[in-house]
Amino acid sequence: MSDVVRLTLEEVHATATGLLRTQGFSHSHAKAIANTVTAAERDECRHHGLFRIPFYVNGLRAGQASPDAEPTITNLAPGIIKVDAHYGFSPLALERGDEPLAKRAMEQGIAALAVNNALNVAALWPEVERLAERGLVAFAYVAAAPYVAPAGGTKPLFGTNPMAFAWPRPNRPPLVFDQASSASARGEIQLRLRDGRTLPEGWAIGPDGKPTTDPKTALAGAQLPFGGVKGSSIALMIELLAGPLLGDLLSFEAGEHDVANTGAPCGGELIIAIDPVQCIERGDRKAQLAHGERLFAKILEQEGTRLPSDRRYEARKRTLREGITVPRSLYETLQTLSMGNYVEERKPYEGDHVVRGEK
Amino acid sequence: MSDVVRLTLEEVHATATGLLRTQGFSHSHAKAIANTVTAAERDECRHHGLFRIPFYVNGLRAGQASPDAEPTITNLAPGIIKVDAHYGFSPLALERGDEPLAKRAMEQGIAALAVNNALNVAALWPEVERLAERGLVAFAYVAAAPYVAPAGGTKPLFGTNPMAFAWPRPNRPPLVFDQASSASARGEIQLRLRDGRTLPEGWAIGPDGKPTTDPKTALAGAQLPFGGVKGSSIALMIELLAGPLLGDLLSFEAGEHDVANTGAPCGGELIIAIDPVQCIERGDRKAQLAHGERLFAKILEQEGTRLPSDRRYEARKRTLREGITVPRSLYETLQTLSMGNYVEERKPYEGDHVVRGEK
Repeated sequence: MSDVVRLTLEEVHATATGLLRTQGFSHSHAKAIANTVTAAERDECRHHGLFRIPFYVNGLRAGQASPDAEPTITNLAPGIIKVDAHYGFSPLALERGDEPLAKRAMEQGIAALAVNNALNVAALWPEVERLAERGLVAFAYVAAAPYVAPAGGTKPLFGTNPMAFAWPRPNRPPLVFDQASSASARGEIQLRLRDGRTLPEGWAIGPDGKPTTDPKTALAGAQLPFGGVKGSSIALMIELLAGPLLGDLLSFEAGEHDVANTGAPCGGELIIAIDPVQCIERGDRKAQLAHGERLFAKILEQEGTRLPSDRRYEARKRTLREGITVPRSLYETLQTLSMGNYVEERKPYEGDHVVRGEK
Repeated sequence: MSDVVRLTLEEVHATATGLLRTQGFSHSHAKAIANTVTAAERDECRHHGLFRIPFYVNGLRAGQASPDAEPTITNLAPGIIKVDAHYGFSPLALERGDEPLAKRAMEQGIAALAVNNALNVAALWPEVERLAERGLVAFAYVAAAPYVAPAGGTKPLFGTNPMAFAWPRPNRPPLVFDQASSASARGEIQLRLRDGRTLPEGWAIGPDGKPTTDPKTALAGAQLPFGGVKGSSIALMIELLAGPLLGDLLSFEAGEHDVANTGAPCGGELIIAIDPVQCIERGDRKAQLAHGERLFAKILEQEGTRLPSDRRYEARKRTLREGITVPRSLYETLQTLSMGNYVEERKPYEGDHVVRGEK
């Protein structure tokens, strides 16, 4: 028997939706989560694909996530909209925020979406990619659980704090990047622990504050920001943008509120959208995008380069045609879950998340 | 005779203003440049202080900079304002943009300022600090001349592309960072060449695309982004934000338009301002800022840390009291310039700039 199972993307979506419904999610939440999981499988971002389903289920089972909270949208200012997820998972709130944010950015030239009280275990690229597909330039910022030491320090304080950016392209998917402000994913350190491999230098320090390449020492200590002081500044900025700016939690506060480890931290997300053509007097959208293309061509004419999102888009072409494969062990877990059964809590590879109770 | 000259900050400002007027700058440009130069000396950012005056004068002498262009302000959208510097140096355009941008951010919740056709040799922290002093959260992005290779590549393409961020603090100056997306300043490589010192690894590659620690090889090759692929993504984002988004030049285009090396590149700058209290429903500004302070306290309770702008603010306290010192050689250059004489073009330490002619 093969140790992988092949699925079409339609099967991925149907499997995810059915399973999440059986486990108790409302139709709208199940569908939104299935959308983001399927998008991740389609782009071969497997850590955010079907692998994540147990995180969603555990969040629900632990009583941390609402199964059916309908996000509410409030206009805070001409350029600022709030979507409150009411402790539901983020995909539904983000989908609901898309249209109002895009509309507002088109009207105002620039607008922001403040996402509050959302449990977030997904990547950020889907929301900025969707906005860029509407012709907008988009930024997203989210904090997480405290795992990363500030530059010069020795104790975990910042989250792995990802940021994403998207730029529209003519007749092709947007340019997108989505990157943590830590030197590595926490999951990568855990995988190396499991596999008995050491870490590259610069990823982590031990509890004594000294650099370490030992995964166990690293997990007991702190991860490091990417790029030293500069990455630390970016992590600090993201803490402020996703937390105090939105009246939501800082990573260390999420840690203090930790009541279980289901892998689903709750907090805020800031999304900014700009209508590029409105940034130029008598702007010409076509000429403006062509200008961006000139930069991309200059990058790609250098051997060894690629654009941040190209690997995902190449995978996308392939999986739309051929479908995807999942490990049989994961497939079996999903089958069990889809019968409504509880699965022994899976210690997530990327246990880089904590969960807190209702505020 | 001492090899340094001590000046009060008032003397710095008067020296700069008088000199720039004598050299042909209009009163408003001379004053705005003197403001930014004095602020840099006050904060001991010496590379942007009196040391920069010859850059401004050379830009003018070479016919690249307008001595008296009055910036014009245009409303592009409810949330977007343009200030066209008309090939004047940036400080005046930025000062003129402050008030309208702040007003718009207060009205809309979020607003952006598109600065066009500005010759820029200054740091970015003054403009974001000023906005944060008004209670706003602010971002600034600017491109430069092509010196930095994209991740995986071997040829210079991106500028050293700085970004700045500011967050208001209660009863004290804002938290601010202002950092290049290159691993090092170009000037630092040139200083090491002069002093016969090697470079740390990770700063640069040679013309063969291989890592180098030799300053001469590095200057003939390309600088590297900070933090590898992630820093390269940030440099790429800044190229797009300061160039195509604003209908202004990419770094490599600034390079192609290079007609002299006076150290004053021309291009765009994007500034975004957010009124934080409008990002929270029934927001309480005092509580919101106190929330940020909790993060800063958590950082500072770790030995070895500091906040990004603290070194500047410590210097500021000292120089407001004691004044500053400048090398006698620089002081003598300034004296010569202030008599209206031309000084043999000073090869700037940080010759990391190119200038282009009028578009």
